Amino acid sequence: MREVKALGFDVFGTVVDWRSSVAQQASLFLEACGLCHVSPLEFADRWRALYQPSMECCRSGRRSYVPLDVLNAETVAIVLREFGASPETITPDFCRAFTGVWHRLATWPDVLESLWRLKSRYIIVPISNGSIAMMTRLARYAGLPWDAILGADISRTYKPMPQTYLSAATTLGIEIHEMALVAAHNDDLHAARAVGLRTVFIPRPREYGPNQTSDLTPEEEWDVVERDFVALADILDC
Amino acid sequence: MREVKALGFDVFGTVVDWRSSVAQQASLFLEACGLCHVSPLEFADRWRALYQPSMECCRSGRRSYVPLDVLNAETVAIVLREFGASPETITPDFCRAFTGVWHRLATWPDVLESLWRLKSRYIIVPISNGSIAMMTRLARYAGLPWDAILGADISRTYKPMPQTYLSAATTLGIEIHEMALVAAHNDDLHAARAVGLRTVFIPRPREYGPNQTSDLTPEEEWDVVERDFVALADILDC
Repeated sequence: MREVKALGFDVFGTVVDWRSSVAQQASLFLEACGLCHVSPLEFADRWRALYQPSMECCRSGRRSYVPLDVLNAETVAIVLREFGASPETITPDFCRAFTGVWHRLATWPDVLESLWRLKSRYIIVPISNGSIAMMTRLARYAGLPWDAILGADISRTYKPMPQTYLSAATTLGIEIHEMALVAAHNDDLHAARAVGLRTVFIPRPREYGPNQTSDLTPEEEWDVVERDFVALADILDC
Repeated sequence: MREVKALGFDVFGTVVDWRSSVAQQASLFLEACGLCHVSPLEFADRWRALYQPSMECCRSGRRSYVPLDVLNAETVAIVLREFGASPETITPDFCRAFTGVWHRLATWPDVLESLWRLKSRYIIVPISNGSIAMMTRLARYAGLPWDAILGADISRTYKPMPQTYLSAATTLGIEIHEMALVAAHNDDLHAARAVGLRTVFIPRPREYGPNQTSDLTPEEEWDVVERDFVALADILDC
């Protein structure tokens, strides 16, 4: 890590607790379309389950790049239909408003102060599948002190495509090995290491709720493995 | 201005005092190439005089987009030759190091606190000809609390090309009229207004030193004209 100049952060799951936040805000929306009986957490999980598949058409090139908000509006319509919402409530405007919940996500409690510490020594940026518009609103909502906003909108494709990681380093004018990805997901880190980034694993064992089974432990010898962002700032002398 | 959601700032001249900062740092470099007798301010002015012409080839499409640091390295070599530096000192590495002075520019005294105030109500971003790499380093050096970094690197061309302003609004997911350009230069504002942005003129009568003759007054009825960033934050109720 000695050569690292910039830390790129996965956001959904690593920086923010999307599940609790989406669920909390979903109640009102679910009520608005007559789905009071649906568990907001179950709804959040089901919506999130369509996240990876929805990006696949852009990754494969079958569809040209569209921002994540567009995909989220499409997938929320699918989920609402699955849960039995009446078609007339699922208007494009309603779905677009619904996707706004992803702009208002709470950080894990160890994040904010640690990001300020890490920023004192490293350039800190999101390397997220969220667009610049989305990440800007989320940063303002949550108070994330990013130095710039990189990710999907810059590379015009989604992680784990190599360009998403490579373009982050190129855009900052640094070498690939001078950038590290900080993520709670082993597959993200695999892809980042494959193109030459350094890797930092921070487990988020509650990202998917109390029964989470994935990403509880590192699957490879990542360059750094720490229990949270505070420990990361400590070990990096920030 | 009531519909405005984001303020885009011209940076060189409007936010930072490039002339004093470049001159201050240039002394050492000038000494290193045997030009102790050259006035650092004169050197800064001459270098800046090549700024607009250097971007012209990218604007016209004769040359594909290259970041401003690359252009600055080319123009500093020209200026150093003009001032009589020996060719063997003007190496690419030396010129590249020299361009780093543009990453370390001091803000005008009214800027920092006002930007924090304006940020409380508006998305604030640079719309600069500087690249994301350059603007990121400058923001870290000067403590500029941008919400995201937009500008030349996003549109892949230079102001006053319409795309530079349009892409800023598109990238943030807002309408053109929801974005205002804050600038000390009438030509920048002309171009921004031509594509539909709101316009804010803040004069910087010392940008080019005590004998400045350009941009001392507004050339059109810009939407807002204020004497500095503090007055702008006041008038916008921030």
